[in-house]
Amino acid sequence: MLLDPVAGLGQASGFRKLGNVVHQDSSDFAIRLRESAQAVNGALETLLAPQPLDFEVLRPPRLLAAMRHATLNGGKRLRPFLTLETARLFGLNSSLAMNGACAIELVHCYSLVHDDLPAMDDDDLRRGNPTVHKAFDEATAILAGDALLTLAFDVMAREQTHHDAMVRSGLVLGLARAAGLGGMAGGQMLDLEAETSQGWEQEAVVTMQAMKTGALLQFAVEAGALIAGAGREERHAIKRYGAALGAAFQIADDILDAQGDSARLGKAAGKDADRNKATLVGTLGLGKAQAICAQKVEDALAALAPFGARAHVLAAAVKFTAARDH
Amino acid sequence: MLLDPVAGLGQASGFRKLGNVVHQDSSDFAIRLRESAQAVNGALETLLAPQPLDFEVLRPPRLLAAMRHATLNGGKRLRPFLTLETARLFGLNSSLAMNGACAIELVHCYSLVHDDLPAMDDDDLRRGNPTVHKAFDEATAILAGDALLTLAFDVMAREQTHHDAMVRSGLVLGLARAAGLGGMAGGQMLDLEAETSQGWEQEAVVTMQAMKTGALLQFAVEAGALIAGAGREERHAIKRYGAALGAAFQIADDILDAQGDSARLGKAAGKDADRNKATLVGTLGLGKAQAICAQKVEDALAALAPFGARAHVLAAAVKFTAARDH
Repeated sequence: MLLDPVAGLGQASGFRKLGNVVHQDSSDFAIRLRESAQAVNGALETLLAPQPLDFEVLRPPRLLAAMRHATLNGGKRLRPFLTLETARLFGLNSSLAMNGACAIELVHCYSLVHDDLPAMDDDDLRRGNPTVHKAFDEATAILAGDALLTLAFDVMAREQTHHDAMVRSGLVLGLARAAGLGGMAGGQMLDLEAETSQGWEQEAVVTMQAMKTGALLQFAVEAGALIAGAGREERHAIKRYGAALGAAFQIADDILDAQGDSARLGKAAGKDADRNKATLVGTLGLGKAQAICAQKVEDALAALAPFGARAHVLAAAVKFTAARDH
Repeated sequence: MLLDPVAGLGQASGFRKLGNVVHQDSSDFAIRLRESAQAVNGALETLLAPQPLDFEVLRPPRLLAAMRHATLNGGKRLRPFLTLETARLFGLNSSLAMNGACAIELVHCYSLVHDDLPAMDDDDLRRGNPTVHKAFDEATAILAGDALLTLAFDVMAREQTHHDAMVRSGLVLGLARAAGLGGMAGGQMLDLEAETSQGWEQEAVVTMQAMKTGALLQFAVEAGALIAGAGREERHAIKRYGAALGAAFQIADDILDAQGDSARLGKAAGKDADRNKATLVGTLGLGKAQAICAQKVEDALAALAPFGARAHVLAAAVKFTAARDH
């Protein structure tokens, strides 16, 4: 079974303590996430294989290599995990949600490539490896991001992704809205603008983060529900879960940057303050940011309540998200 | 009638002579193209309106302004024209193909923004105006391109674009394939690689150009046929037309760069040779390139033969494409 926890294989999973959140199931969860990541990596490897598809003349080797560098890089694969596990919550064999899950991860990977560019966050390292524009060059990195974003929509619209074209269209629409002007790209714009302005209010930071990070995480769970054919009320509950998880994720990220060490993060720590980034740690201080993060975890767990014990993996996921150390 | 030629309004349309191509209907065609562009501009204006849509918290003003700068800029709107006219050839009121036509134009506009970046073709002017990274900054230009590409898929997947979700999914898939690794983005990568290599063969130049420029032009006509519900054989014929038109367009572009003047082009001329760009003019010389361009026009007209006189607008379009002076 692809995503079942492997009993007795528990090991230290590096969770930090966070407020009053109890980390039950944490080592089981870490194993489950790792196994899911292996399956996702296999599927991404297939999507980015060197052979051109039947409609393609060729897959230009340098561009494909940059796309692979950006994608097959040891990421946690949290977004596809959320899609697969949400689909499973609604009774779908998670392998049937794999294409949709991978499409979302491709969007995440594209966003990292473009965010790392010199004109944006100017990062040389990503997960301990050179960023795409360092390993290749800027032009190649721009194009690799573009092609990954485009491939995400290609994958989402494929017949293998879902037998019902209405669902496929809905997935494309949801992905575009999570990623675009009113979502991730718009949030990144606001984030960059914050660097040259002063005194952002809490509300503005929350909006920016909900767009930049929250929208795609929320869509990752929503996509699982869509693919599995969940009902309207179930989808509503799962969206609430996704929104709270997205918020917890980004605040945890800000806390990590303020507290973390670069070696574990695989990227430079402490850069948010150096760059005058808008974060809740910066706006409210570390203690209040931690309290809000813990509250978001509680909100996410409350949204899962209707699903009872069936939702224990998604419950563990939000705890992991808020308390991760890298 | 939105796209009907206006009788008696003929005026000098600036066509160059090209081989043995006869420019019948050229002034009618120029009027028709201009009227179509006005309708497309109106639709694009609506898509890029400042008001957030119901699912959006906000449309970040700076990013939206950059997207508008990139899009509402006086372009010829050739791609949407081809979509609208192809839909009309198959009996559809062209306004019903407007969303699909606009989605394709958004992809075209995104590609220009990214191609103009300093790390790519490094152009300061586009249609006589500052390019997006000049009018704003590089980070904003990267994000504006990303958000335009994403918006294209959003628009393509909307229910208003076509009532049948199978058609919407097919449009998304076709657009992604025309734009991605095996299409436009891949072609741009090859184009950049050519700048630092020597002695490209004709075949390699043709492949690169078919990916970089041809794929999206071909899809523009194909999309019109898909939206209008054309049959398999009709779609096959129209794809042949699109492929030949795409090739003619790019060769004409190379000829324009070699011969044109910057003021009329709205961008610097003569840059291909300076940059060691792979072009058929560079590989085969001007005369042979012109002959191939004329042959492509003939191929396109031959593909239209089954449609008889009904296809006279598309026939004029390929002649315009090959003989345009900007």
